[in-house]
Amino acid sequence: MDSNQINTLIKQFQAQNTANMFHKDFLLTWEKTGDELMGILLCAQILRGMRENNISPKIFDSGLGVSIFRDKSTRTRFSFAGAASMLGLAVQELDETKTQVAHGETVRETANMISFLTETIGIRDDMYLGEGNTYMREVASALEEGFQEGVLPTRPTVVNLQCDIDHPTQTMADLLHMVTYFGGLKNLKGKKIAMTWAYSPSYGKPLSVPQGVIGLMSRFGMEVSLAYPEGYTLISDTVDRARKQSQESGGTFTLCSSMEEAFKDADMVYPKSWAPYGVMEERTELLKKKDLAGLEELEKKCLENNRKYVDWECNEKLMAETKRGKALYMHCLPADITGVSCDNGEVSKEVFGKYRIQTYKQAGWKPYIIAAMIFLSRVQNPGEALSSMIKKGKPRSLFT
Amino acid sequence: MDSNQINTLIKQFQAQNTANMFHKDFLLTWEKTGDELMGILLCAQILRGMRENNISPKIFDSGLGVSIFRDKSTRTRFSFAGAASMLGLAVQELDETKTQVAHGETVRETANMISFLTETIGIRDDMYLGEGNTYMREVASALEEGFQEGVLPTRPTVVNLQCDIDHPTQTMADLLHMVTYFGGLKNLKGKKIAMTWAYSPSYGKPLSVPQGVIGLMSRFGMEVSLAYPEGYTLISDTVDRARKQSQESGGTFTLCSSMEEAFKDADMVYPKSWAPYGVMEERTELLKKKDLAGLEELEKKCLENNRKYVDWECNEKLMAETKRGKALYMHCLPADITGVSCDNGEVSKEVFGKYRIQTYKQAGWKPYIIAAMIFLSRVQNPGEALSSMIKKGKPRSLFT
Amino acid sequence: MDSNQINTLIKQFQAQNTANMFHKDFLLTWEKTGDELMGILLCAQILRGMRENNISPKIFDSGLGVSIFRDKSTRTRFSFAGAASMLGLAVQELDETKTQVAHGETVRETANMISFLTETIGIRDDMYLGEGNTYMREVASALEEGFQEGVLPTRPTVVNLQCDIDHPTQTMADLLHMVTYFGGLKNLKGKKIAMTWAYSPSYGKPLSVPQGVIGLMSRFGMEVSLAYPEGYTLISDTVDRARKQSQESGGTFTLCSSMEEAFKDADMVYPKSWAPYGVMEERTELLKKKDLAGLEELEKKCLENNRKYVDWECNEKLMAETKRGKALYMHCLPADITGVSCDNGEVSKEVFGKYRIQTYKQAGWKPYIIAAMIFLSRVQNPGEALSSMIKKGKPRSLFT
Repeated sequence: MDSNQINTLIKQFQAQNTANMFHKDFLLTWEKTGDELMGILLCAQILRGMRENNISPKIFDSGLGVSIFRDKSTRTRFSFAGAASMLGLAVQELDETKTQVAHGETVRETANMISFLTETIGIRDDMYLGEGNTYMREVASALEEGFQEGVLPTRPTVVNLQCDIDHPTQTMADLLHMVTYFGGLKNLKGKKIAMTWAYSPSYGKPLSVPQGVIGLMSRFGMEVSLAYPEGYTLISDTVDRARKQSQESGGTFTLCSSMEEAFKDADMVYPKSWAPYGVMEERTELLKKKDLAGLEELEKKCLENNRKYVDWECNEKLMAETKRGKALYMHCLPADITGVSCDNGEVSKEVFGKYRIQTYKQAGWKPYIIAAMIFLSRVQNPGEALSSMIKKGKPRSLFT
Repeated sequence: MDSNQINTLIKQFQAQNTANMFHKDFLLTWEKTGDELMGILLCAQILRGMRENNISPKIFDSGLGVSIFRDKSTRTRFSFAGAASMLGLAVQELDETKTQVAHGETVRETANMISFLTETIGIRDDMYLGEGNTYMREVASALEEGFQEGVLPTRPTVVNLQCDIDHPTQTMADLLHMVTYFGGLKNLKGKKIAMTWAYSPSYGKPLSVPQGVIGLMSRFGMEVSLAYPEGYTLISDTVDRARKQSQESGGTFTLCSSMEEAFKDADMVYPKSWAPYGVMEERTELLKKKDLAGLEELEKKCLENNRKYVDWECNEKLMAETKRGKALYMHCLPADITGVSCDNGEVSKEVFGKYRIQTYKQAGWKPYIIAAMIFLSRVQNPGEALSSMIKKGKPRSLFT
Repeated sequence: MDSNQINTLIKQFQAQNTANMFHKDFLLTWEKTGDELMGILLCAQILRGMRENNISPKIFDSGLGVSIFRDKSTRTRFSFAGAASMLGLAVQELDETKTQVAHGETVRETANMISFLTETIGIRDDMYLGEGNTYMREVASALEEGFQEGVLPTRPTVVNLQCDIDHPTQTMADLLHMVTYFGGLKNLKGKKIAMTWAYSPSYGKPLSVPQGVIGLMSRFGMEVSLAYPEGYTLISDTVDRARKQSQESGGTFTLCSSMEEAFKDADMVYPKSWAPYGVMEERTELLKKKDLAGLEELEKKCLENNRKYVDWECNEKLMAETKRGKALYMHCLPADITGVSCDNGEVSKEVFGKYRIQTYKQAGWKPYIIAAMIFLSRVQNPGEALSSMIKKGKPRSLFT
């Protein structure tokens, strides 16, 4: 990316109204305006351009970026760490096994205790239906109270690193990947994206990616096709919203009952396993009751049921059905790849192999998306700040 | 805090003799002079003022701040991390499960191995009576030897993040909270503080907070009242010292056998559970012998004994006994709150609710207290350094 | 170290050809030229001199230094953290228990996922024969592909923090310790180093240190003596290479069957336990099969066999055999010390006590060696960069 391209992006950025993002959390993409989403996409590209041109985007001299991972994570963990470092924050992870969190501490207390010097808190909490996003809002509301009451010197920003409902840092990275792959957001208008269930020999995978994908991609005039086997429904709200947004944006929303149907003439395909909503609900109840026998029973039943749909695999035959046989295959990784990580998985070895590098590039946007979310919520005049840093040109690496 | 206020604090700071703190550890408050304690309080306030005015207090361009937590911790962990980041140090935690510490390594070897690039080591070791503080001194003496022998380029500072005897980062934060709440250290003279035991359905809580509180607050002319049920004695040395210090500072020290008596006309109350000294001794022996059955037996016996004092709860009736019914309730958090974190606890829901925000503010001083302890032990002319940084006014956040 | 000494080191550094180290991994010392090894030694000394003179060697304003520890570690972990901080990188550890690595993720995928903002990846993987170094090369090749394909903005450098074959950060620190102890690399020519097995009541210790020591020290014209009890062979390649290198460098390489023979007139002795190659092979197979009973059986058999050689202890009688009774005792730490960490160990309490501070100094070079490895692989004109930083003299600690 050369400096002309960066300047063009800055101009585009300054045309977006992102004023309302200052000191606001990023919890669900559908709570953000089109301008705000566009602002994130542009800011992420600018930050990446700055790195390519060895210009430091460091806006903090010190301060903490706190992360709370209630589920395992590799890429989001490293993306958050990279984003924090880029902006000048030290990462401090709240490891609930090492803390006194269980020891009678309330969410609102902990939220304040970890925030005396904190600019942002990134949270992954995707295990329990009805809880992850709720927890994030509890944290956010405690931070708001702490700030109002003079406990905290500033109001840290909560960034959703995956919850039970949405996975905005993932889907925004997905979107930016499509934008750059197809040469601009405008070019996505009218394009067909197939978000489909796929078979995996595991169970209990969160619903946040498919819900987040339909909740975001339905806002740009695309043809969104959602496909899953009988029973593998999502939270109905998220489907209703996607349908409504598709209409408003001049796109379409179709529910299909087979991968074939969804893949037909698709420009992008996103085949990924998830657990049925009903099973997730049952599981949430059993987990709360700590009913281990019940959980085992449920897993067995669920895996058996999954086996019925082992043919929901993204393979070359299916890919041939897509637009000119050349749809962009997408995945949030790690994918269950037939013959690589399991006997039967979400995607055949051939298809994955062909798009492997593309899925890495897709993932590569995540640190910049997270950094952009933090940036726009911590800097009052982000356009000016970006311009000023680019003008100054402080090197990120002193002797490259 | 405006710049005039900061300048006033700097002048006050420069009037204290803190010269002897350079390259010295902070292990027990009673090893420090009045000027030195005052220096910490003032420095902590100045560092906070700098943050409020967006002035960077970063004194290191690189280097490590090492933490060793031998017990769980949330707020101290984050306070240490915040303090380290503020001053420019990267936190590296010595997680003894991930290291070769058990693998035949001596304390003096480990102390050197983790210190080649280290400015400070914060240690929490509060599990065993007679050991925590001793361990810190072993580390300190190993660092001294390493420095003298040319192994280490500098002598890192050990900061006590809670031991078996004292909890200086907590009690100094407590003191600073009282100072700001009552409008100055002078105003604490003659005020009554009640440090009392309180019921908790857990056992084995360290003695360091009550010991540290009476050991510190007895130095400023306050009326210190200590109350606990029969048998819940503290290390006798710490009580003797508090009594002596009270006399010297023109205050009083009273041992009471009920919360009522201690709370009577108190200006501050600090009701908190701890294990009886005798039980802690027995527990230490059993832990060393790894006598699990014995430990279980002891816990059972101790919890039963605790139950006799379930009425030692800080509630509205007791608070009404305090000065105008308005004493400042204090706690190091997390508190055991009746009806919130347990059926019967240290404090009623009503009282805690009323002072919740105050306890958060109390905790909020801790990162600045830790930063001040590090600052005064690493900078030879701290007054000049603070002045110079304030004059320069390097922003902490570039675009706020 | 004064500024004249630093300038002399810089001149010496600039006389070495290190051009080919840019963007290259450091995996085995014998893959590096003499100039390159010399470059590392000099750069490490310069970086240490800069610290002693309070000059910042920070070359990055942000970015990640990733570490992967597949075995426990204290000093290497802290050395890597110190090196990263010194150069301006934030450490992010890949803790495989907290990640989705097991979850169907391939090495080449993970390597890319953790590297979007990464300058270097340090890896310790010494558990399985035939695997550690191979794993590092897989990571490196994945990074190369990621960079070539435009996934990664730069090609991060892999640094071997100990594998099944070599332990270059250790042996280079060992070498630098000898260089400074004996007053220059030239003075090592003709000196005798005894690398010998020693008894330890543990089993399964990696072969990387003895292999690495003979693989490195055989390049400088020393008399290298390797001694071990029957059966405690090393990977034969590494011994063959050491023999060949000794000839080429004008030194000698001798295989001895007793400590006495090896210690005779030695200038340096390095007595250290390791597992026999055959046992390591068997263990690797059993570990792969997760044959716990087999592993227990093997451990028992091996410890029994070890017991036969309990007299392989470095004690005063043996030390008396060395050159004027004054050989430099070396160890990578922690050592198994008779009467301290075990009943019978690698070294007597007396000998270790005499050289304890020396072993700490030996370890003290490691952070600078690691920093030098990163520096030379990330900076295109390292000599100029060092000069320029020294001229600028930006302080590391603002107010020392």
